[in-house]
Amino acid sequence: MFRNDSRPLVTAPAETAVLALLLAEGPLSRVELARRTGLSSTAITKAARPLIDDGYLHELAPERTAPGAGRPVNPLAVTPDREFFVGVKISDDRLFGVVCDLRARVRATAGRTLGDCRPEAVSGLLTELVGELLDAEPAFRERTRHLGIAVSGDVDRASGRVRFSGRLGWSDVPLAAMVSASTGLTVTVENDVKALTIAEHWWFGEGVGTGYFALVTIGAGIGSAIVVNGQLVKGAYGVAGEMGHICVDPAGPRCRCGSAGCVEAIASSGAILEAVRRGTGLRGLAFEQAVEMAREGNPVAREAFARAGRAIGVAIATLVNLVGPERVVVSGEGTDTYDLFGQHIKDAYASHTFGAAGRCPLSLRPLPWEEWARGAAAVAVQALFP
Amino acid sequence: MFRNDSRPLVTAPAETAVLALLLAEGPLSRVELARRTGLSSTAITKAARPLIDDGYLHELAPERTAPGAGRPVNPLAVTPDREFFVGVKISDDRLFGVVCDLRARVRATAGRTLGDCRPEAVSGLLTELVGELLDAEPAFRERTRHLGIAVSGDVDRASGRVRFSGRLGWSDVPLAAMVSASTGLTVTVENDVKALTIAEHWWFGEGVGTGYFALVTIGAGIGSAIVVNGQLVKGAYGVAGEMGHICVDPAGPRCRCGSAGCVEAIASSGAILEAVRRGTGLRGLAFEQAVEMAREGNPVAREAFARAGRAIGVAIATLVNLVGPERVVVSGEGTDTYDLFGQHIKDAYASHTFGAAGRCPLSLRPLPWEEWARGAAAVAVQALFP
Repeated sequence: MFRNDSRPLVTAPAETAVLALLLAEGPLSRVELARRTGLSSTAITKAARPLIDDGYLHELAPERTAPGAGRPVNPLAVTPDREFFVGVKISDDRLFGVVCDLRARVRATAGRTLGDCRPEAVSGLLTELVGELLDAEPAFRERTRHLGIAVSGDVDRASGRVRFSGRLGWSDVPLAAMVSASTGLTVTVENDVKALTIAEHWWFGEGVGTGYFALVTIGAGIGSAIVVNGQLVKGAYGVAGEMGHICVDPAGPRCRCGSAGCVEAIASSGAILEAVRRGTGLRGLAFEQAVEMAREGNPVAREAFARAGRAIGVAIATLVNLVGPERVVVSGEGTDTYDLFGQHIKDAYASHTFGAAGRCPLSLRPLPWEEWARGAAAVAVQALFP
Repeated sequence: MFRNDSRPLVTAPAETAVLALLLAEGPLSRVELARRTGLSSTAITKAARPLIDDGYLHELAPERTAPGAGRPVNPLAVTPDREFFVGVKISDDRLFGVVCDLRARVRATAGRTLGDCRPEAVSGLLTELVGELLDAEPAFRERTRHLGIAVSGDVDRASGRVRFSGRLGWSDVPLAAMVSASTGLTVTVENDVKALTIAEHWWFGEGVGTGYFALVTIGAGIGSAIVVNGQLVKGAYGVAGEMGHICVDPAGPRCRCGSAGCVEAIASSGAILEAVRRGTGLRGLAFEQAVEMAREGNPVAREAFARAGRAIGVAIATLVNLVGPERVVVSGEGTDTYDLFGQHIKDAYASHTFGAAGRCPLSLRPLPWEEWARGAAAVAVQALFP
């Protein structure tokens, strides 16, 4: 995170716990908050007070659960409009941005086509996009302090630098500092898959409440992020969840990372297209055409998708055997062609999971671009915390 | 754990934290304990009091670090002989047991050759072995309440059942209940690699103090255990770290788990032997002979070890890319033939790790059988905790 405004909203552990629970789970009574955090009701009341005074929390009207069930309770709730957060996903051909409120609702969206991937060009276009988003409602400009940016590759969140992004051709780009200077916002940069997983696990979605969870994305890149004991796995050297670069076939094709047999070298949309082009001799084929050929039964195209599906299934089984998630969500733009490789993913997954680890279900979740940007906004919300 | 005596020694969080720190790191002053736990000095003194009264902790003689450096401090230390712990490792051809004191020192050892792997036979021989160990010193029988057992396979520690162990041919064996009944001890059963990792990470060894750590064992089986954010990865369904059953070659040999291309099907000592037998036609070859042939330069034998080394290196790189440990310890009886595949492990590891994750060093650590049994004893010590 690159801080223009370096003070987190909450600092004390009790405040942090109360705000995080209410953000993820909606209104809760003080009694329920005390039970869930292990704190006393007095501590909850004390922790909530400054957040109520600041307008982040409010009390709902009293509700009495049953006649004679004791004195009425006023559940505490997050005030959605107290602050807004901008999230922007950078892909190699476009920017997509959202404004979210504190309860993760998308309040505005905007996009830009990206022609030039150089850092200065991206930063300039991104600044323009943020301006458009904040202009959508007067309240946005008044009450937005944080911007989250999600980008594929190796990101050092603490310093706000993109250490490496193969898809953008970036190496050590101080993105947070650049965009903070041009927008005046506090900027947090995170790897896109991690950002989405934070959103799914911490803010909303299937992962909330699970101790072990993984999210896998397929498409132009293959990635994953893993939650263990309720926390995102970050890795001692800042790298983890690199499912796209695990080797599933020693005889497999070379990968742009320099290694060979990586999942991404077999199963990314680019790798599938390349296999179809090579097998058919049609060098000018577009990905959409390869998809169409496979759907029409062309054996070369069908086998390219099948091989990709097997590689993805083996890789997910590998992750599951090592880490043991409760469930895995499979997402990303590659889910658009799930009809072509879904069964191969499932079969390979089933045959390579070990013992009880294989009880972990895979759930398919097509994600619109908006969700990626909402992941970036989740990271911006985390800047409220220490 | 199967509890004969269900009360843990410590229950309050402060007591738990103080005892765990002193067990792992040796004598510490109250000031240092306060700093490390985030508790007040008063809370530390209060937490230590019952443990001192019970004889688990004692105060060392006052030490003054420098002239005029303030009032002298009496560091707190664990009293090693207050309680003893038996640890037994079960392999497919022997039992090996130790008595450890509270500071992880091995105070007695004993072993048995295992002819019959059926659960009743193993339980009987194990009971005999525990009797021999406890007879080594009168204090052992007086002050031993806990037995830890380490066994390969899928273990449900909570119920004390071995759900599946391919090497022993076991399926759903209530081992803790059986051995608890015959020895009168509180018995905890754990997967052997996890037990060793707990010992290395929690009690002594290279892993103490690391947030991200992994231990990989090679030999008759291939396994691993992983620590993330300071905690052992257990998996939502009780299975994690199954490095032996990740698929590294879709064209690889069938594995006894029913799948194909597993690391264990290529790189276990049995798989290496099988490859040398098949390649040379020498069906009666023993593993030691295969090792000798490779050391003498036989190309078939050398290639079998090389292929095993590549499979292990790719698998460790996979673990590192997904989880990002700070360091990986490679251990197990397979380290005896490290001269034959060590370079292949290192080369494959280096070429398949991604980005900064590859900064994680591999350290080789040959482990005598005693260490496996000490791992089992570490699990017994954990029964003191809630």
